[in-house]
Amino acid sequence: MLSASFSATLRVRLADRPGAFADLARAVADAAGSLDAIDLVRVEGGSKIRDVTVLAQDAEHLQRIVDAVRALPGIEVEHVSDRTFLMHLGGKIQVVGKTPLRTRDDLSMAYTPGVARISEAIAADPQSVWNLTIKGNTVAVVSDGTAVLGLGDIGPEAALPVMEGKALLFKEFADIDAFPLCLATKEPDEIVATVTAVAPVFGGINLEDISAPRCFEVEARLREALDIPVFHDDQHGTAVVVLAALVNALRVVGKRLEDVKIVVTGVGAAGTAATRILQAAGAQRVVGCDRRGALYAGRPDLVGVKLAFAAETNPEREEGPPDDVLAGADVFLGLSRPGAVTVEGIRSMADGAIVLAMANPTPEVRPEELAGFAAVIATGRSDYPNQINNVLAFPGIFRGALDVRATEITEEMKLAAAHAIAAVVAPEELGPEYIVPSVFNRDVVPAVASAVAEAAERGGVARRRREPVVAD
Amino acid sequence: MLSASFSATLRVRLADRPGAFADLARAVADAAGSLDAIDLVRVEGGSKIRDVTVLAQDAEHLQRIVDAVRALPGIEVEHVSDRTFLMHLGGKIQVVGKTPLRTRDDLSMAYTPGVARISEAIAADPQSVWNLTIKGNTVAVVSDGTAVLGLGDIGPEAALPVMEGKALLFKEFADIDAFPLCLATKEPDEIVATVTAVAPVFGGINLEDISAPRCFEVEARLREALDIPVFHDDQHGTAVVVLAALVNALRVVGKRLEDVKIVVTGVGAAGTAATRILQAAGAQRVVGCDRRGALYAGRPDLVGVKLAFAAETNPEREEGPPDDVLAGADVFLGLSRPGAVTVEGIRSMADGAIVLAMANPTPEVRPEELAGFAAVIATGRSDYPNQINNVLAFPGIFRGALDVRATEITEEMKLAAAHAIAAVVAPEELGPEYIVPSVFNRDVVPAVASAVAEAAERGGVARRRREPVVAD
Repeated sequence: MLSASFSATLRVRLADRPGAFADLARAVADAAGSLDAIDLVRVEGGSKIRDVTVLAQDAEHLQRIVDAVRALPGIEVEHVSDRTFLMHLGGKIQVVGKTPLRTRDDLSMAYTPGVARISEAIAADPQSVWNLTIKGNTVAVVSDGTAVLGLGDIGPEAALPVMEGKALLFKEFADIDAFPLCLATKEPDEIVATVTAVAPVFGGINLEDISAPRCFEVEARLREALDIPVFHDDQHGTAVVVLAALVNALRVVGKRLEDVKIVVTGVGAAGTAATRILQAAGAQRVVGCDRRGALYAGRPDLVGVKLAFAAETNPEREEGPPDDVLAGADVFLGLSRPGAVTVEGIRSMADGAIVLAMANPTPEVRPEELAGFAAVIATGRSDYPNQINNVLAFPGIFRGALDVRATEITEEMKLAAAHAIAAVVAPEELGPEYIVPSVFNRDVVPAVASAVAEAAERGGVARRRREPVVAD
Repeated sequence: MLSASFSATLRVRLADRPGAFADLARAVADAAGSLDAIDLVRVEGGSKIRDVTVLAQDAEHLQRIVDAVRALPGIEVEHVSDRTFLMHLGGKIQVVGKTPLRTRDDLSMAYTPGVARISEAIAADPQSVWNLTIKGNTVAVVSDGTAVLGLGDIGPEAALPVMEGKALLFKEFADIDAFPLCLATKEPDEIVATVTAVAPVFGGINLEDISAPRCFEVEARLREALDIPVFHDDQHGTAVVVLAALVNALRVVGKRLEDVKIVVTGVGAAGTAATRILQAAGAQRVVGCDRRGALYAGRPDLVGVKLAFAAETNPEREEGPPDDVLAGADVFLGLSRPGAVTVEGIRSMADGAIVLAMANPTPEVRPEELAGFAAVIATGRSDYPNQINNVLAFPGIFRGALDVRATEITEEMKLAAAHAIAAVVAPEELGPEYIVPSVFNRDVVPAVASAVAEAAERGGVARRRREPVVAD
């Protein structure tokens, strides 16, 4: 796939003769690249200076395209700007004032002496911190950098661009002020202590890209310690969007969650959370698989989280590799890695098979290989139909939680979020290639936020009722 | 003093008859209040609806003015909006994107998959975190809420409006992205561990309103642990502006720092740091006083920081209350509380006495009582001449430190900052009522930043040379 994320803008000097630009366009095409924006910068002597943006499919491909252009006679490449790197110079977010600070009066209200009155008011009534500070709309995006995207344990500094990106998504999709905190420790005790210490500033904590099994302990202890929502997005955000997709996929094939057999590959953070929410929604027959095959009660090597998982799943104690247990299954949910199952395995599934192959960027099985025998196929990618992306869930979930000042995010709130996402796709729109709304669908966040806020109120974890939302 | 920080906007309904508004204006004046903005909201039947802003000197006074207006016949007060509280609703800062996020292309560069390339680049070259993330322009404003303004130990939530205000000042004055972290712990070990854990995101740490003596330990340990500047503003920001003011005040009276006797009341965070910078700048004769009087080597009750302070100051081992040691002194520096010295004490000082009475909001002695015998008087207040305010120092100091990616803020950088502030007042402008520039003087931050960056480069604590600054 050609992608803006692997694109560069080349400043080129072309001799002012017929065919000069055609040569460049041909070279890009021959290198299997694509031309995007083309701007004329200036005309200088006998040359034209242009900015030409090219799209590639990966970094190595991008380099090949640039090299091909450089090799052309009469065309000089003056400068290559990688668009993704350019966008990241100086970071992607900033902290700005909501109030001007131009005069002595402004200063005397926003800072001393006026601010002392606000501090005194909060000291007298601690709950007023929700009204009189940023707390009520602010979320910490916390990572220790141990499980960043598919890159693994790359450390807190290298995790920061991802957490900034997350903060950007929070703002753009849900008008939430999120700030990244990348921690220079991997010790659960220290992570818990640090987040607990900074919690007064925040209305919620979004944990991100913390590796299993530490992520389970960290989240559980923080939920216990804090009176604000703590939400590990890799677990629960993924679980919510998976359930949303599956609810609609089952409608497409005319099956019920209570009846279907679901095979899950990957029982890390995402796999365990997805299994839990599917069971909470009614699923009876889930079989989880790790690299050693199906998890079943009694499998001798299991300890900890996996031991508990095996006890609560796979009622028929099926054994064997994923391909084996896929035989006759209705749903395949891949939260693992490319190649975790084979095309033959998928082919052995029941009629009306649903395949949610979420490994990123390369799915467990390639959708084009399943044509004809899988009824519904979804991935995490934007270049296939049915992109299942956490962006559908976390902005609305936190928006709803903050709106009612929730003390936690309960299982009911997550279920409500999943059903709200699913419901954005109207019955008449629903089809094999449209089971989840686009991440840019503006109906998603308000729908999810409302459903989550109502579920919080019903569940008794709301500090206040939701204020009527005024449409823009 | 009438102040915007104690002001309210009254929505009043006035009978549409001659003299109705005059009655209101008279009532405000009789209550010693002042009218500010007056807006006509609408005319309704036989009434005019107006928004009338009044200024008071404190909260109780504001209430008296409102009551006086309410008592008027034919005038109905529909609503009272406290301007300072209004400004604080929802907090004073927000986190916003620096890049749009409108299309799939934007998303693929700012977030997955494009962001993975940035993370990989930082993992491969850790120093690139300064270029490719917010780190290079971001400062944490850290407080445990134990010494907030004059309010004492009011806790992290109540401290948050002050820290938000500080973040706002960082942005407005120096274009620095600052984020408040108010900590739910007072334990130095935990404060140090928390700040160390979050440090990867920040290019500098501004400690704020942490009570002595814990502030000394916390700062020292963090400076040791981190490779970014750690700066306790209550100590060093105050010290820098005090030195700046004193440098110019001494020019006014024609004395040299090396020669003068300086009496300091208050040897907490600010007093000890101010004494240290004055000595570093050349002062030989500083006598510090706490509530028990002058500190001298051998005073039996001294331990810890004060014991060390006594050993390094008061070479003549003077004893007694502040008023006694003021006899013949050239400079009084109050960093303590109203009434710490008397007018008689100031009267006993040498000719050309300099009085820097910094207790806030009420100075140690009132400037109007010193007229005629103090040559130069300065306070922390904006309603007297010579306001000595940390806002003159910390924005430029951090700007300069970030510009060169300094590893710490050295004594030389602070001295450079003080002299840069002093130099903003031109020789021909200098006078008893103009020893420091206004906090709104736009020359201050660039001058301080340049001086600090140069001092960092000279001192070998700069990671890079300062880029040429392009004027707006």
